[in-house]
Amino acid sequence: MFKKVCIIGCGLIGSSIARAIKKNNLAKKVVSSNRSNDTNKKVIELKLVDDSNSDVKKIVDGSDLIIIATPLSSYKDVILKIKDSLKDGTILTDVGSVKENIINLIEKNIPENVSWIPSHPIAGTEESGPEAGFSELFQNRWCILTPSKKAKEKDIILLKNFWKKLGSKVDIMEAKQHDHILSITSHIPHLIAYNIVNTTLNIQDKKATDIIKYSAGGLRDFTRIAASNPIMWRDIFIQNKKNTSKIIDDFIVNLESLKKAIENEDGKKLEEIFTKTKKMRKEIIEAGQDVKKSDFGRK
Amino acid sequence: MFKKVCIIGCGLIGSSIARAIKKNNLAKKVVSSNRSNDTNKKVIELKLVDDSNSDVKKIVDGSDLIIIATPLSSYKDVILKIKDSLKDGTILTDVGSVKENIINLIEKNIPENVSWIPSHPIAGTEESGPEAGFSELFQNRWCILTPSKKAKEKDIILLKNFWKKLGSKVDIMEAKQHDHILSITSHIPHLIAYNIVNTTLNIQDKKATDIIKYSAGGLRDFTRIAASNPIMWRDIFIQNKKNTSKIIDDFIVNLESLKKAIENEDGKKLEEIFTKTKKMRKEIIEAGQDVKKSDFGRK
Repeated sequence: MFKKVCIIGCGLIGSSIARAIKKNNLAKKVVSSNRSNDTNKKVIELKLVDDSNSDVKKIVDGSDLIIIATPLSSYKDVILKIKDSLKDGTILTDVGSVKENIINLIEKNIPENVSWIPSHPIAGTEESGPEAGFSELFQNRWCILTPSKKAKEKDIILLKNFWKKLGSKVDIMEAKQHDHILSITSHIPHLIAYNIVNTTLNIQDKKATDIIKYSAGGLRDFTRIAASNPIMWRDIFIQNKKNTSKIIDDFIVNLESLKKAIENEDGKKLEEIFTKTKKMRKEIIEAGQDVKKSDFGRK
Repeated sequence: MFKKVCIIGCGLIGSSIARAIKKNNLAKKVVSSNRSNDTNKKVIELKLVDDSNSDVKKIVDGSDLIIIATPLSSYKDVILKIKDSLKDGTILTDVGSVKENIINLIEKNIPENVSWIPSHPIAGTEESGPEAGFSELFQNRWCILTPSKKAKEKDIILLKNFWKKLGSKVDIMEAKQHDHILSITSHIPHLIAYNIVNTTLNIQDKKATDIIKYSAGGLRDFTRIAASNPIMWRDIFIQNKKNTSKIIDDFIVNLESLKKAIENEDGKKLEEIFTKTKKMRKEIIEAGQDVKKSDFGRK
């Protein structure tokens, strides 16, 4: 499918892509670039890539597919380093969770004849690093492409097929719409999970051990989400701050209203809301986005 | 262990107890009382109990262990109906998630010679009803007892052993302490999950289908928690309103502060908080309260 693929940043996502390319035989050569020499050594040892080097400008040379898989805050640094090494006809993509800002940042820095097609594979675990990756990570998961204006149609089709070979279902949409939807389905849930665990940590008293001990009543599910990569999420919230801020405001208004209903012992209102939210679960299961299998009571 | 056990309310928890009693041979006879005649018929058909009847006053007669497993808002009705049918030496318990209010409500309504020992098995799924129960639900889960002042020591030991036979680990604490800890580990997480799903539902636009479609990015995990029994949770929040209100306030203060950090692009502060919350996950896994197995990326 490709002659040379270069993955910049072999973390959970980057290393999973490398594994999936190797497994499905999608490129003659796969290389990567990581800032840390330990990581460059490790990905070669693990046979995830054929070569890996911290000199990103040098190692991207001659690639027909380049995938940026670093935290969003490193994009600027990366693009300034590689922009003069991009060959004509290269496809440039990424795997970041926010699109609108970075699409412009990169567009204005790359040569005319490069197809810049941001990707967002909606897949992941709360683990980080090259050892946490696995080739099936993208199986049956959505991947959203938000092509830049200058991206060539044939390259969009090629990249779409690439993700399909990795097992993904692919959708194409505007960056702005992507950022709005994802703020609801992913960014706010993560922020809330971080906030609930942080609030718990701030209740500093002798009950700390008890909180851990009895966490199976609901809290532990939030701690899993709040164990995700801090750097990655720091960048996501900042990059998508307009959407995030707006929904935080909505969330607080609704929470204040729930609080009032509890204080007034307004059982009717509470029951009404909790019945409504139950329905959404049903729709998600019907859409095949989760299995009807409870794990609240799991060991 | 017991001659006759009466379970009042055969929902997820009540029916799981009935199954576990039968399986472990802990009583000569198990009966139940449900308000709905359909449920009474069903639990007999399913062979969960030997007899079941909506006339709770009649069916509790002669029981040496009575377990109230109804929503908290029904306790008053139940105790007024059964108080004159309680035989000397009976152990009365429940499975409710809030303790301080109900401990007093029941204490003042029962005869001197009944041991009232509230129980809270920290176990459950998001499913409801007698068909959702299973006998292993309490395996390796904590069960907290908050004995009333007049409960006899020998009965506390007996009830403790009963829960152990069901597979639980048992702790004893003050009702007040129980309600505080559980508000943190269970009640607030559920309220927040309800609120996030409700906030999402309120964003009424053409993106509704997209929200379901891309829910695997975090939201779906909240919808699972927000699919729990609406009546049960309505009652829990109202019964534990003091603790709940207090923590909602803390939660909002912290969320406002996160929002401010995002708006100011204060990456240092965000990273600091997200790194701290990651540690709590580690402690929960070390305490055996969850498994180190990611399921964010599950199919």
